Amino acid sequence: MSATPKEFLDFVDNNADAFIKRLSEAVSIKSVSGDAAYRSEVFKMSDWISQQFKAVGVEIQQVDLGKHIMDGQELQLPKAVLGRLGNNPNKKTILVYGHFDVQPANLSDGWNTDPFVLTAQPNGQLVGRGSSDDKGPVLGWLNTLQYHHDNKKELPVNFRCCFEGMEENGSEGLDELVERESKPGGWFDGVDCVCISDNYWLNTRTPVLTYGLRGLSYYKLNITGPARDLHSGVFGRTVHEPMTDLIKLMSTLVDVNGKILIPGVDEMITTADVEERKLYEALDYSIDDVEASAGASIALSTDKVEVLMGRMRMPSLSLHGIEGAFYGPGAKTVIPAKVSGKFSIRLVPPQTPENVLPLVKAHVESEFAKLGSKNKFELEELHGGKPWVTDINHWNFQAARTATKAIYNKDPDMTREGGSIPVTLTFAEALGVNVLLLPMGRGDDGAHSTNEKLDRSNFIEGTKLLGTEIRWNMYNVICIFQAHIMPL
Amino acid sequence: MSATPKEFLDFVDNNADAFIKRLSEAVSIKSVSGDAAYRSEVFKMSDWISQQFKAVGVEIQQVDLGKHIMDGQELQLPKAVLGRLGNNPNKKTILVYGHFDVQPANLSDGWNTDPFVLTAQPNGQLVGRGSSDDKGPVLGWLNTLQYHHDNKKELPVNFRCCFEGMEENGSEGLDELVERESKPGGWFDGVDCVCISDNYWLNTRTPVLTYGLRGLSYYKLNITGPARDLHSGVFGRTVHEPMTDLIKLMSTLVDVNGKILIPGVDEMITTADVEERKLYEALDYSIDDVEASAGASIALSTDKVEVLMGRMRMPSLSLHGIEGAFYGPGAKTVIPAKVSGKFSIRLVPPQTPENVLPLVKAHVESEFAKLGSKNKFELEELHGGKPWVTDINHWNFQAARTATKAIYNKDPDMTREGGSIPVTLTFAEALGVNVLLLPMGRGDDGAHSTNEKLDRSNFIEGTKLLGTEIRWNMYNVICIFQAHIMPL
Repeated sequence: MSATPKEFLDFVDNNADAFIKRLSEAVSIKSVSGDAAYRSEVFKMSDWISQQFKAVGVEIQQVDLGKHIMDGQELQLPKAVLGRLGNNPNKKTILVYGHFDVQPANLSDGWNTDPFVLTAQPNGQLVGRGSSDDKGPVLGWLNTLQYHHDNKKELPVNFRCCFEGMEENGSEGLDELVERESKPGGWFDGVDCVCISDNYWLNTRTPVLTYGLRGLSYYKLNITGPARDLHSGVFGRTVHEPMTDLIKLMSTLVDVNGKILIPGVDEMITTADVEERKLYEALDYSIDDVEASAGASIALSTDKVEVLMGRMRMPSLSLHGIEGAFYGPGAKTVIPAKVSGKFSIRLVPPQTPENVLPLVKAHVESEFAKLGSKNKFELEELHGGKPWVTDINHWNFQAARTATKAIYNKDPDMTREGGSIPVTLTFAEALGVNVLLLPMGRGDDGAHSTNEKLDRSNFIEGTKLLGTEIRWNMYNVICIFQAHIMPL
Repeated sequence: MSATPKEFLDFVDNNADAFIKRLSEAVSIKSVSGDAAYRSEVFKMSDWISQQFKAVGVEIQQVDLGKHIMDGQELQLPKAVLGRLGNNPNKKTILVYGHFDVQPANLSDGWNTDPFVLTAQPNGQLVGRGSSDDKGPVLGWLNTLQYHHDNKKELPVNFRCCFEGMEENGSEGLDELVERESKPGGWFDGVDCVCISDNYWLNTRTPVLTYGLRGLSYYKLNITGPARDLHSGVFGRTVHEPMTDLIKLMSTLVDVNGKILIPGVDEMITTADVEERKLYEALDYSIDDVEASAGASIALSTDKVEVLMGRMRMPSLSLHGIEGAFYGPGAKTVIPAKVSGKFSIRLVPPQTPENVLPLVKAHVESEFAKLGSKNKFELEELHGGKPWVTDINHWNFQAARTATKAIYNKDPDMTREGGSIPVTLTFAEALGVNVLLLPMGRGDDGAHSTNEKLDRSNFIEGTKLLGTEIRWNMYNVICIFQAHIMPL
């Protein structure tokens, strides 16, 4: 008995063209959540997704998330799609999350083809907005369910899904929905694990399971001086200039090698021992990979372990820009009256926005006091999110690891991501269960860029992976309940 | 015999309302040179000015300055207006410069009244775009000429004028015109001195003659790293970030007290001795004045001499902003791929853009090398202009000083401006004669701001001052030629 019956694999291969056609249809709906002009398309996409999942037997509820204000207009939020299939107490209940909205895209941004027409390239890439982020993965689940529906096969798990249409625009309304539905009697009541497919492989070769995300604290350093912008001819060397103060302050935050200079921040993190370094050594990743994706030879180290740990297990501080200063082309001789330096710190455990804030505050206040400027200074925290790391030995990960091995014939890289996927923590905290990040696409998919793509093989093998993953979850259930007496 | 006949003073007082009405007419023409939509209004203004000066007997030539590109359109440059009245070899020939174009202005910018309707306030302020910069002063000359014309009085000097319609937009085409007309046989051939009325008193109380301007060198520090903007989650602490390098570099340029940290730049300037400090001590200016105009208590010193010298006789370095970084509101977690820091140095003699550039270049190159970043770095000089200081004992200044005393009953403050008026240097170099800056308006006129105004008293007394100034020039001629035998 195999966890991945040939019948399922053949079904996916035989229906590949139909699956891609369905992905084309999804891509053709311009569900850009960040542009009010496309809001009706996001609604259309919510309906389309609902129809598709209903057609394979899933009970669907479209949830009104209320209104929000965007670009000065009050807009209805796209309806979230909740799905349910199976309620067998002897099966594990898996909750799948995805989103059906996309980033903005215009041909004039530099796309080689119409971003809303899925275009198959000779090299197997399926180019189109949302192909990889996140319509492909959502449709991967649909493909899997279709196998069970069309062949009247019982699903090996109880299936729950939560698809939203605001992920690219701050997931407005989602936290409340997840908290509400996680309560007893809610849609997510009884969920045993969560699987999110909304991230990427490290490279273009090796599948990945992701068990950690960095958190974020975003800060704004405000320096206020004159009542209005001044002319540098009239006031230069006459008054304290806010930009001079701000640049001094910003220069004390991080060094050019990425070391955070705010006392206590880097110090919260333990040094990796030899064993932990081996985990990073084992990943299929090279300095060439990072430099290829950055497009320049600018890696901070020639040691891949250092570079990977910098991204995955160390905090980072980036200076993003300055609000209020001159930013246009050309030469303007202004002394800006009020400037706000933006920077953020990516956090790793045990850091939280709460325990890092006092360190940042103490540092910038002390540095500003040293300057002796007569301008006014204030630190603002714009928003924050905790980091997340989970247990890779949990059966949720074991199932995915075994499934990956079965489909791709290689062990997945176990990675932590440098970025944040806030919904991960929302589910982990609301449900108190293990969350697995199981990416479908490759590291070069260009999720938020022009010419976003999903490789055909990733869509098709990725579908097989999802189907196999839930099957292994079934085995895990059996293993757990039957004390490993069934042969795998 | 008086240099300021009562008849002239009475004429100005008696015609004040008519003069203001004429200023209203000038203000109502929306001659915004920086906005292509208003270009026809600048042309209209060139015609209007020509008509007005012709009506008081001035021979006028409107000069086509060719075309230029603005906002992607090819546009005809507004015609400059050259005027000529009198050719008596026994008289001095004075060349007057002014401009009839204005800065943009919209009611929605925060104007209390329509910017193109000159509005007399109960406190005597005439509010309107261009009232002070520079239609008021140009019309001051017209008022003076009208006295001579209407009363058939011979003008005490030979009059030449040069009015342009592109001053607020880089004075395109003017340098070539001035150079061409300064040659033998040109419109400006034989000019003995220049008078420009396009700056302001130091405060609201005391008239000013200006004998110096700072020059300018504007620089751009370009740091290039990745091929495109990166996500700080994915790349934070993985690659050298251009913003980190740029902020470090910018922090080495100037300290919070205005001292320039680029070795050799401040050192080019001699220290003021006791005698020179007295010149600044004598000016009607206080720390309160600078802080009132800045709108905050942020003066670099409590010593007014230090503050005035910082503005007038010392170079200054201002950090203007960063191109390419995140500048909007909100929180964007971007690692900008290419950032350009903008800063400029205001220059004083003996500094020139040419002798300061190597110092700046050596400094930033050495500081960038110290960083050890793998990003690419480049210094660009965007534009530059020399400083200008002239001889305040020249008869051109003596005449203006005597005229000021006669009209305002007080000695003018002799000042150097912190900013630049490039046309000053153009005339000084092309003609090789003394240039006097003789402001009509006050320090709080808000030339480029909302609610620009000219005080009625400054317009009327300023007209008297211009008329008296040329009269004193006549006396100077007589003095020079007749060895002081005529009683003043």
